[in-house]
Amino acid sequence: MRIDIITVLPELLSSPFEASILKRAIKANLVEVHFHNLRDYTTDNYKSVDDYQFGGGAGMVMMIEPIDKCISGLKAERNYDEIIYMTPDGETLNQGIANQISLKENIIILCGHYKGVDQRVRDHFITREISIGDYVLSGGELGAAVLCDAVIRLIPGVLGNETSALTDSFQDNLLAPPIYTRPRSYKGWDVPEVLFSGNFPEIEKWREDKAYQRTKSRRPDLLDE
Amino acid sequence: MRIDIITVLPELLSSPFEASILKRAIKANLVEVHFHNLRDYTTDNYKSVDDYQFGGGAGMVMMIEPIDKCISGLKAERNYDEIIYMTPDGETLNQGIANQISLKENIIILCGHYKGVDQRVRDHFITREISIGDYVLSGGELGAAVLCDAVIRLIPGVLGNETSALTDSFQDNLLAPPIYTRPRSYKGWDVPEVLFSGNFPEIEKWREDKAYQRTKSRRPDLLDE
Repeated sequence: MRIDIITVLPELLSSPFEASILKRAIKANLVEVHFHNLRDYTTDNYKSVDDYQFGGGAGMVMMIEPIDKCISGLKAERNYDEIIYMTPDGETLNQGIANQISLKENIIILCGHYKGVDQRVRDHFITREISIGDYVLSGGELGAAVLCDAVIRLIPGVLGNETSALTDSFQDNLLAPPIYTRPRSYKGWDVPEVLFSGNFPEIEKWREDKAYQRTKSRRPDLLDE
Repeated sequence: MRIDIITVLPELLSSPFEASILKRAIKANLVEVHFHNLRDYTTDNYKSVDDYQFGGGAGMVMMIEPIDKCISGLKAERNYDEIIYMTPDGETLNQGIANQISLKENIIILCGHYKGVDQRVRDHFITREISIGDYVLSGGELGAAVLCDAVIRLIPGVLGNETSALTDSFQDNLLAPPIYTRPRSYKGWDVPEVLFSGNFPEIEKWREDKAYQRTKSRRPDLLDE
């Protein structure tokens, strides 16, 4: 999989891709991630990427021209399955969408910044708009990092233990059950006895019950789906 | 505001806090952010922070003892309003929660990693569990960065233009209207005429209509709230 990220702040994105699972996936050539600094596609001396809103109002707007240049250049080199714009009014990311995107070959992610991009970018270049949640961030960069992390860890071979992602929350519309590790007793707080029974069907049943109870009390909406 | 972030991967978190708005807010002393490497609170020679799950199963579990030491040390120094655990089964972050947290004085954010933390940490130390969305990430670090960004930009004085955050999506349960900037015409794609009318009540009305239409078509659930 190849991911091209277009941003005005590539430096904001560096560390999440240089640590942990993303770093390992890139090193193992399971995914290629390329950053494109939008300022490299500007035509004026000031390397302007944004300008005032037409009609007045607070906040700067990202201009269409540098974005067009960057996207068109990439599209001339290969086919892209999706050109994604990170924006709080996009469709809300969930595990199903992450699964879907993890099967793509080439994607572009455009990070909004300031007040957002000129609407014509969205109308003419973007194939999919994604939000990571109902809150506003200072830019799309963290959203892009979140989307990449959610997607890349699903690519076969990325997680050390192949079965690990399958028992995560949401993969089966259930939250994960409680988990425990050593010590067995800490300050008088004990690990539930059943986990030491050695009776695996019983442990499995306990976990399913707990996952169901937790989902029912915290996120009953997931059970309706 | 003071934010203490407890993590096994402080290096993953560095760049988001060294760029853009978070950097500016920290420089202007509007917020203090401290990272605590959980490995500094381990007691064995291997600096272990995680161990196998009791009862079997894939994925490692973060141990209670180093987390207890780190949190207890911080609590001995000052009072904390919230001790937040980032986890996909927590309450889902939204703009209302971000507004709420932006009014706190001192908070701790614990980043889960691997399969998550020992349930006893959640039962005995955590006051609030937050998820940034219905998807699974390789760790709580990106979630913590997202939470910090959403919260810090709401602290008065952080955004350059005080009115800017108020016209964002979600602040009034409406998505933001389309925005445009120069050039007025690009490849035959024109900016709507109304924005050049100079008639500000009319422009305001156009924006409200567009915001309402966009919300109705994309996120009718927001209108029900």
